[in-house]
Amino acid sequence: MPTPTIGVFDSGFGGLTVLRALLPRIPAAHYLYLGDTARLPYGAKSQATIARYAVDSARFLHSRGATMLVIACNTASALALNEIRAAVPIPVIGVIEPVVQMAHYGRQGSQVLVLATSATVQSHAYQHACALRELEAVEMPCPLLVPLVEEGWIDHPVTREVLHIYLAEALATCNPSAVLLGCTHYPLIANPITDMLRELGSRASVIDSAQATAHEVALRLGIDTPNPSAPPATFTCFATDSIEKFQRLGSHFLGQPIPKVELLDLGG
Amino acid sequence: MPTPTIGVFDSGFGGLTVLRALLPRIPAAHYLYLGDTARLPYGAKSQATIARYAVDSARFLHSRGATMLVIACNTASALALNEIRAAVPIPVIGVIEPVVQMAHYGRQGSQVLVLATSATVQSHAYQHACALRELEAVEMPCPLLVPLVEEGWIDHPVTREVLHIYLAEALATCNPSAVLLGCTHYPLIANPITDMLRELGSRASVIDSAQATAHEVALRLGIDTPNPSAPPATFTCFATDSIEKFQRLGSHFLGQPIPKVELLDLGG
Repeated sequence: MPTPTIGVFDSGFGGLTVLRALLPRIPAAHYLYLGDTARLPYGAKSQATIARYAVDSARFLHSRGATMLVIACNTASALALNEIRAAVPIPVIGVIEPVVQMAHYGRQGSQVLVLATSATVQSHAYQHACALRELEAVEMPCPLLVPLVEEGWIDHPVTREVLHIYLAEALATCNPSAVLLGCTHYPLIANPITDMLRELGSRASVIDSAQATAHEVALRLGIDTPNPSAPPATFTCFATDSIEKFQRLGSHFLGQPIPKVELLDLGG
Repeated sequence: MPTPTIGVFDSGFGGLTVLRALLPRIPAAHYLYLGDTARLPYGAKSQATIARYAVDSARFLHSRGATMLVIACNTASALALNEIRAAVPIPVIGVIEPVVQMAHYGRQGSQVLVLATSATVQSHAYQHACALRELEAVEMPCPLLVPLVEEGWIDHPVTREVLHIYLAEALATCNPSAVLLGCTHYPLIANPITDMLRELGSRASVIDSAQATAHEVALRLGIDTPNPSAPPATFTCFATDSIEKFQRLGSHFLGQPIPKVELLDLGG
């Protein structure tokens, strides 16, 4: 099999948690990561605008040789997957299907709690994907979690208090068997989320979309288990705004330094 | 004097606090408010991108008959005022000069604390404007305050805890005679900010840019005191994305319903 070139697209840095999960899972690949940082956040924008932006980025990654595309952005996965699939002649994987697929094993008929941004909740994309797999999704908008992660308040009393408020409100209305992290920023606070669930008496598993999506990509490529003797994966990053900020903030999400970022003008 | 048409520009809804201050202060005017919501927030973007966006909006408002322009956006006021002034042949007033001007009366030689977004702090625009008026500015980035205001957590324990953290950190390094609210979202939490300052032992005055800017616009128009017999001001709103969201969120910032919003495509 030729080395695949996997394009990973997000509106910003959050999708780097998906790239972080992909690198060790599928090392025999080259990755092209595009953060459309000049136009983030997508969450506040209309469906038509988001689809237009996401299609621009998908076409760019295809033009640079991507043989598969990962839409590592919940908003674009919820609102623009059909438009992206129509725009490029390569497989396109969003972040919503994989995490719901992973949640559904052994949990048919149970409730799952989806934590996400307001835009993702308003799209009800998780509810629809869950309903197709006999899961009842309760969707909880958590608009403060992205800014808290970006502030770097990971293991912080304010983050715990905010999680307490959001999770106590959600658990008052449901008893989930799993909690789905429906935003690519949330894997960075997976531990505080698990801790707060336990404190509130829930035994729900926490499933993050980064791991689930990497697993799905590996299955599509026919890679059952990682090859430990493979050379380490290589990646190239593109951003539509401030290179310096992308390198500085992005390295927290990727969990390693980002040596080089190419500035890209997609217009707009 | 003919009725002035005052263009008010912001990247989103925050600038509606400036329009809210202008309406009663200068009722004999028509206002054109433009929120560039498709491209918000400007704070994360580079100077060149912000200048390009702001100039687009300024030209649009001028083309619709604006005879004066208020840049009700701290980021654009900090980073793009010269470019906007070069692009339109009408007076252009930013939000930074007026609040610094108001702070400086009777306070020469003293310290002021500026609360703002990370982007505004990084521009050091307040520090420069203060230095010209013999004020020593201490700038404190408060990235969580905008999302807390947008979440509607105005009189809320989490907002108080976050304010406690930011203000205690700032007051450990300075003893300000005034606290400048360097973000158009912050007037909505002016009372919690004042309360927390008192709790932390500071007697500093809180000065918000909305009131200061309205005062400056009135002075430029030669209006010393509001005319109570003037008919109420009229306004038209334009947004570059989701009309529904603009009306829903915007009404909190404006303090009154927004009956009608025109959708505008500035490209991008």
